[in-house]
Amino acid sequence: MKGFFYPTSVVVIGVSEKPTNMGRMIVNNMISKGFVGQVHAVGPTGGVILGRPIRKSVKDITFPMDLAIILTPAHIIPGLVRECGEKEIRRIVIESAGFSELSEERKALEEELLSITREYGIRFIGPNCIGLVNTENGLSTPFVSLPMQFEKGKVSVISQSGGVAMNYMDALAFEAVYFNKVTSIGNKLNVDETELLDYFVNDDDGTEIICMYLEGIMNGRRLMEVARASTKPIIVHKSGIGKAGAASAASHTGSLASDDKIVSTAFKQAGIIRVRSTGMMMDLVKIFELPPLKGRNLAIVSRSGGHGVIAADTAEHFGFNLPPFPQKDIGMIKKHVRGGVINLRNPLDLGDLFDLSIYEEIAQQILSSEHIHGMVLVHGYSEAEKEASRHFMGLVKELSEIHRKPVALCLNIDDNETAYLRRNFDFPFYKSPEDGALALNASYRTHLYREAHKMFTPYVKTVDTAPVSKILDRSKAENRNPSQAECFDILKCYDFPVPEYRSARTGEEAAGAAEAIGFPVVLKVDVPSIIHKSDIGGVIMNLNVSESVVKTFNQLQARLKSHLKKGELFSSLVMKQANLDGQEVIFGIKQDATFGPVLLFGLGGVFAELIEDVSLRVLPVDRTDVVEMIQEIRGYEALTGVRGTSPKDIDSLVDHLLSLSQLAQDFQQISEIDLNPVISYENSCLALDARFIL
Amino acid sequence: MKGFFYPTSVVVIGVSEKPTNMGRMIVNNMISKGFVGQVHAVGPTGGVILGRPIRKSVKDITFPMDLAIILTPAHIIPGLVRECGEKEIRRIVIESAGFSELSEERKALEEELLSITREYGIRFIGPNCIGLVNTENGLSTPFVSLPMQFEKGKVSVISQSGGVAMNYMDALAFEAVYFNKVTSIGNKLNVDETELLDYFVNDDDGTEIICMYLEGIMNGRRLMEVARASTKPIIVHKSGIGKAGAASAASHTGSLASDDKIVSTAFKQAGIIRVRSTGMMMDLVKIFELPPLKGRNLAIVSRSGGHGVIAADTAEHFGFNLPPFPQKDIGMIKKHVRGGVINLRNPLDLGDLFDLSIYEEIAQQILSSEHIHGMVLVHGYSEAEKEASRHFMGLVKELSEIHRKPVALCLNIDDNETAYLRRNFDFPFYKSPEDGALALNASYRTHLYREAHKMFTPYVKTVDTAPVSKILDRSKAENRNPSQAECFDILKCYDFPVPEYRSARTGEEAAGAAEAIGFPVVLKVDVPSIIHKSDIGGVIMNLNVSESVVKTFNQLQARLKSHLKKGELFSSLVMKQANLDGQEVIFGIKQDATFGPVLLFGLGGVFAELIEDVSLRVLPVDRTDVVEMIQEIRGYEALTGVRGTSPKDIDSLVDHLLSLSQLAQDFQQISEIDLNPVISYENSCLALDARFIL
Repeated sequence: MKGFFYPTSVVVIGVSEKPTNMGRMIVNNMISKGFVGQVHAVGPTGGVILGRPIRKSVKDITFPMDLAIILTPAHIIPGLVRECGEKEIRRIVIESAGFSELSEERKALEEELLSITREYGIRFIGPNCIGLVNTENGLSTPFVSLPMQFEKGKVSVISQSGGVAMNYMDALAFEAVYFNKVTSIGNKLNVDETELLDYFVNDDDGTEIICMYLEGIMNGRRLMEVARASTKPIIVHKSGIGKAGAASAASHTGSLASDDKIVSTAFKQAGIIRVRSTGMMMDLVKIFELPPLKGRNLAIVSRSGGHGVIAADTAEHFGFNLPPFPQKDIGMIKKHVRGGVINLRNPLDLGDLFDLSIYEEIAQQILSSEHIHGMVLVHGYSEAEKEASRHFMGLVKELSEIHRKPVALCLNIDDNETAYLRRNFDFPFYKSPEDGALALNASYRTHLYREAHKMFTPYVKTVDTAPVSKILDRSKAENRNPSQAECFDILKCYDFPVPEYRSARTGEEAAGAAEAIGFPVVLKVDVPSIIHKSDIGGVIMNLNVSESVVKTFNQLQARLKSHLKKGELFSSLVMKQANLDGQEVIFGIKQDATFGPVLLFGLGGVFAELIEDVSLRVLPVDRTDVVEMIQEIRGYEALTGVRGTSPKDIDSLVDHLLSLSQLAQDFQQISEIDLNPVISYENSCLALDARFIL
Repeated sequence: MKGFFYPTSVVVIGVSEKPTNMGRMIVNNMISKGFVGQVHAVGPTGGVILGRPIRKSVKDITFPMDLAIILTPAHIIPGLVRECGEKEIRRIVIESAGFSELSEERKALEEELLSITREYGIRFIGPNCIGLVNTENGLSTPFVSLPMQFEKGKVSVISQSGGVAMNYMDALAFEAVYFNKVTSIGNKLNVDETELLDYFVNDDDGTEIICMYLEGIMNGRRLMEVARASTKPIIVHKSGIGKAGAASAASHTGSLASDDKIVSTAFKQAGIIRVRSTGMMMDLVKIFELPPLKGRNLAIVSRSGGHGVIAADTAEHFGFNLPPFPQKDIGMIKKHVRGGVINLRNPLDLGDLFDLSIYEEIAQQILSSEHIHGMVLVHGYSEAEKEASRHFMGLVKELSEIHRKPVALCLNIDDNETAYLRRNFDFPFYKSPEDGALALNASYRTHLYREAHKMFTPYVKTVDTAPVSKILDRSKAENRNPSQAECFDILKCYDFPVPEYRSARTGEEAAGAAEAIGFPVVLKVDVPSIIHKSDIGGVIMNLNVSESVVKTFNQLQARLKSHLKKGELFSSLVMKQANLDGQEVIFGIKQDATFGPVLLFGLGGVFAELIEDVSLRVLPVDRTDVVEMIQEIRGYEALTGVRGTSPKDIDSLVDHLLSLSQLAQDFQQISEIDLNPVISYENSCLALDARFIL
């Protein structure tokens, strides 16, 4: 990737002398932003731009070039790329639109492009993008004007949209949080977000914080791997398009695990912070310029009582503590307080105190207190207190650095002072305490993640997979899903507890099976083409004697004949009737196109049906992940014993969710699994039904 | 209230020549903001300020005065107020702190103040506030400097916190949405938020939009009444302090209906928009400057594809539709589009279109389309397109006015252009499409509320209340809660269906009762001091013969003897055993200190216990309210028939929730009611247990 950001010689293709020409703007940007290398221009009409010749073709340029920027009509690009290949250019940014984002027919053009670039070993960014900006060397390929001065910062941006990339540049500059590199990746036909992220995380020293805007994700698992290993904060705005998709899923698990929920889960597991707006993105970027918040004890100090209350409100919402200030720490403060018009509680309302040197004392005492991990400081001032306030805030910055504690400084000041501070005061500040507390929460969550993640070792279970492969291969060969008996066979290979069961193709076989298993039994139709067994009355319980088994079998067979596909034989599963006196839960697996296998857990019955109270984890997981996924469902207490019900065996649920996770990883050809219900007992659990979809 | 905002002569008490004197700042603000009336100054040290004398007492001023501003140490205020009373001043703003907000001991000072003001018929604002600002006449009582120029706007502010009031003034000015009047009400010992709201809503023509910041609410019912009748939008930031309080409630309903949830419910019922941050307050204020959004069909038009996606995402989140543009409306546009690099779908990505005259055409076509109710328009430009863009936005403003449709204009522009537009372009704009879509949602909700609210007629049921009074009076006289038999007696007065029941004090009475009712019966201990009957095994079901009733009664009596209070007699309720084959629901009532009686509905069992899936309404309600409160619970489908269960009789639930609401309003001495469970059947419902707490 470094070749894209640090070329020594760049050629812009698609330049003319016309004032409305967009390639012209690229050249202009490169020059005006002071790009440190050579800039060549190519365009069919020739001419001169900014004192340099426009060549009719790259072939006419004799200097070596290592990066080409192309902005021409889409259909001529394959030819131009080939010319670049011939000239040994191995990095290209293709900014033109008019590919698959416009219509399906343009896919062929993309294929052609890919084939040529493969042939020459060319890597390219785009098409349909504004390319790259690097404040370290002045590289700036956008074809739109870049108004502000570049200041080299430490935030790098990867955006699927050029407009959002531009907006981030403006917004960061407005906050005086400067950027280091920006990439707009468009259709990401070749270079994708994860490759760039990997570069920013592992190979680019200039980047300390990474912001991304994504509409789709090319390879979710790889993205997670890179993010998991990152020590740099990664903040992503993933827009949730395509939510409607999940509605058409085949299984219960499929519909409960929507694409957007999987994205949120995956990000959380990978330590990626997900934001829902540009404003929130900016609030979070700023907090990562400060030391991390390493505990949940906050001090709130506010010049305005109301803002102290608002800050406390938000802090409570995020689960922070506002511990009282220890007597020894506030002793010094008390001495200074005039007339008793202040209450030394947390949140601290500075009320009638107007002497800023006392504020300094307070900040010093509080930030040096070992009981306090961070601070929300709300201040406001006008002209008269400008100098004193700037001095005070300078001290706060120093204290934050000395004590390695973050201070979310929230300022009520006018536009001029805001502009002054952004230019001259190298410390982030917020417009409101809500924003500050939100940002501190992200800082704390990230700290917790990094601490916890040190322990992560994916769960592995070693299983003889040969019998499982055999069953799945047979199903596949017969172009059907496994029968329930086959699903149970597979689950048993993974030590998953299921009731005793046998398959039966005649009433007599069924009776024999029941006698062998022991009464009472359940008789279930077990034919791959019949998916919703219960809905058509295909599950009969409470069979206590052989005669009823035979009779029931024959009745079922007669009644359900019409549901069979041509050539399909009627078959049933005879199953030991299980004790239902436990809590129904649901286990599931879904193979997500982006993130691979996803594990689902939820309470059964109304919880799953009506309120979709389920939790998800992208695999692999460790034991801690699975314990957390059980605890995070809203109805968790149904498992811990409420109002007369006994506590259930959560360890057993954890064990078998882990087993199921191994199965899902071993056999990714199983696209969805529903174990619904699994009954959770006091000392075990048992899957009463299983459905696998290939 | 008008007297506070339009005085002809003001006296400021607490002024000295000292540079740090805060009263001095008040006089200074009044003069510099050009207050149109007289300004007098009073302070014990005398002297001169801004060319006018500081009198030692109001008694020394011979001019008539109609508003006094007091900012002195708290303890001398009662004396000063008396002097004002003697001088026939009837409106006072008390800005000093040091009253009950500081410590409980200062309550006495407040009492003294109230007694003197009552004596003279004085109305006052404060204490502990910064008072009033009125841009119509330059009145400006804050003791802090007011930096910006006043421009007369149409937004008025009521804030419990002076700091937040100042912050709102700055934030509104920053958005170029100017304010009309601002009041900081502090401890609101006399004038409260509702009186001021009433004035702004009904008597003050200058005010068109009202913003409030509240930490507590004095009289919630009155606030709701005023808001309900308002045609001006009311936006409130209520901070959620005191959430912890609900945990200690006596009944299930008490703990499920937290204070903060009641506030949200009450606001929704009254058409008040609740915001959680200052930023959101500003976003919503701006949208109310535009015509209301009268339908859910939005057009999204964006110069950046990414922002179009983000806008669509947010719009989907709020339940808006993005209908395709009708062929006839886009016909005109298609003509103009070059080279086919644009897809005319909604959201519309303007992509490679750079000719702003085409944008104008598009805006014109879309806003005149009857299928579209409003628009999110994302635009961005730099220096080169400044003039064309300003022209385009001017046209958009005109189109919005002509077609009476709101346009949330979201601009990616630099600071200079932002500042220019705020000064010269009288149309609100947003920094991001998320903010714009959020604001449009508030506009639409407010429109819907105003439409629906025209129909609101509170439900009234006429009941002979004498027998109920008698039961409640007896309980009160005996300093106990009503027994379950008495609760059932009361419910029957309101036609509430309960199982047949009798009280019994001996085993033989119980058996006789059972025989009269018919078996099977349930026997319940029914002693006011035993609240959690089930938890101590005080409910015995499935009694089928007289002998078991006698035996069970005697066993219960013996076992629970120790639970009785001294002198309390053992008693039981014999109840016809009901059919449990229905959906358990819970009905509840809570008397809220601020809002009065609140009705609660939820599904019973795990829904109420584990996930707190309940809905609330402040009383009175109409039938529509109650239908909505049933529909809005997450588990609503459990009542409509899912997976083999039958649909329940929702009309009957509505009828009896309405009956219960009448009971709660007729007898506000009942502080909490739990009917848990009520069983909802296919054709009726039945309360199986009732508990009233006085």
